[in-house]
Amino acid sequence: MKLKESKELGVNALIFLNPKRDSDIRTLLVPAPVYVALLHYPIRNRHGKLVTTAVTNMDIHDIARSARTFGVRQYFIVTPIEEQHELVGRILGHWRTERSREYHPDRFEALERVRLVHRFDEAKEAIHQELGEWPEVVLTDARPLPNAISYSDYRKELVAPHRTRPVVLVFGTGWGISDTFYPEVHRILAPVYGPEGKEGGYNHLSVRAAVAVILDRLFGH
Amino acid sequence: MKLKESKELGVNALIFLNPKRDSDIRTLLVPAPVYVALLHYPIRNRHGKLVTTAVTNMDIHDIARSARTFGVRQYFIVTPIEEQHELVGRILGHWRTERSREYHPDRFEALERVRLVHRFDEAKEAIHQELGEWPEVVLTDARPLPNAISYSDYRKELVAPHRTRPVVLVFGTGWGISDTFYPEVHRILAPVYGPEGKEGGYNHLSVRAAVAVILDRLFGH
Repeated sequence: MKLKESKELGVNALIFLNPKRDSDIRTLLVPAPVYVALLHYPIRNRHGKLVTTAVTNMDIHDIARSARTFGVRQYFIVTPIEEQHELVGRILGHWRTERSREYHPDRFEALERVRLVHRFDEAKEAIHQELGEWPEVVLTDARPLPNAISYSDYRKELVAPHRTRPVVLVFGTGWGISDTFYPEVHRILAPVYGPEGKEGGYNHLSVRAAVAVILDRLFGH
Repeated sequence: MKLKESKELGVNALIFLNPKRDSDIRTLLVPAPVYVALLHYPIRNRHGKLVTTAVTNMDIHDIARSARTFGVRQYFIVTPIEEQHELVGRILGHWRTERSREYHPDRFEALERVRLVHRFDEAKEAIHQELGEWPEVVLTDARPLPNAISYSDYRKELVAPHRTRPVVLVFGTGWGISDTFYPEVHRILAPVYGPEGKEGGYNHLSVRAAVAVILDRLFGH
């Protein structure tokens, strides 16, 4: 099997060649550059009040591994609290040593892509600095919101030829992202539902599970 | 919107009616009864040796919430260690109180479906007792194994008319399920890959993320 860049199909397209079966020549589309941001502020608590949540160790690891699996370029952990930067910085430092690279190469490779920032602005600036373009900000939410786009539609957009604009998928902690964040948002993804769809009712995935499912729906093989 | 059972299409089929658009009448398929089992024995450690792993609190919660979201009937936590039964039993007891039902209804509803067993046999017997049929045992594994079935193919099988046989999806902890479990297995699901497919290399999802992605691929809306 061979991957060959195709000029005709645009910068995001590759032609996938299976030499054993001529009829099986098909196009493998490479999506736009994607980033993930996990917000710990501005967040709603159970009463709808604006709060800052704490970073959890499991959110660092699980989301880093999912991000690495699905080709995410960087995973931004956003928290304004200085003590959390010290704590998370120490955890990341532990996993970024040479010893860890040898003994836990999978963890090392995943956690390499984690970046700790104070404000969401810093994530956007980092993306702009890396690629020279400002990202499209995509909100995920467990509640149905107006103008939400389906996963299959957005997946198609991301692999459209000549699309280069990066995307940052934004996930919340606590009881979800506060409305005060909405002015930042360009696009909204539909909630994740089980087999019964919207009528089924229960959609209380952990943020770790939601990130995995949403990345798979947009970028899974 | 209305759901109506369809005798012609078999026990697993419902007709989905959208009264606004006649052309949009389509079939919503109800899959076979599904269960999840998380094994803590027999498991491989990093050196391939047979071990028993410890139950983690996050595996209880995250997988229970994913199971509830995707319509899983029961989530079996399998561990032979008596001390673990006491510990996990205490955690489950805490979340199954009336106070928890009021204050954390989503957690209550998810954890209701968790069942603690000593051996995988007990899970099979519980399913047989509930439905009068022995389940098809489906192995999930991050490594490519012979005769693995794709998600889209297995999804089709599960919604086939007249299919009633239950399914138990088996997930491992540690470095994966030991080969000594293989005689139990009827079917094997393909590994979960990112956008680059098999050639992309990295597929080290956490078990919590893998359960969510696999349930979504088989039962997501």
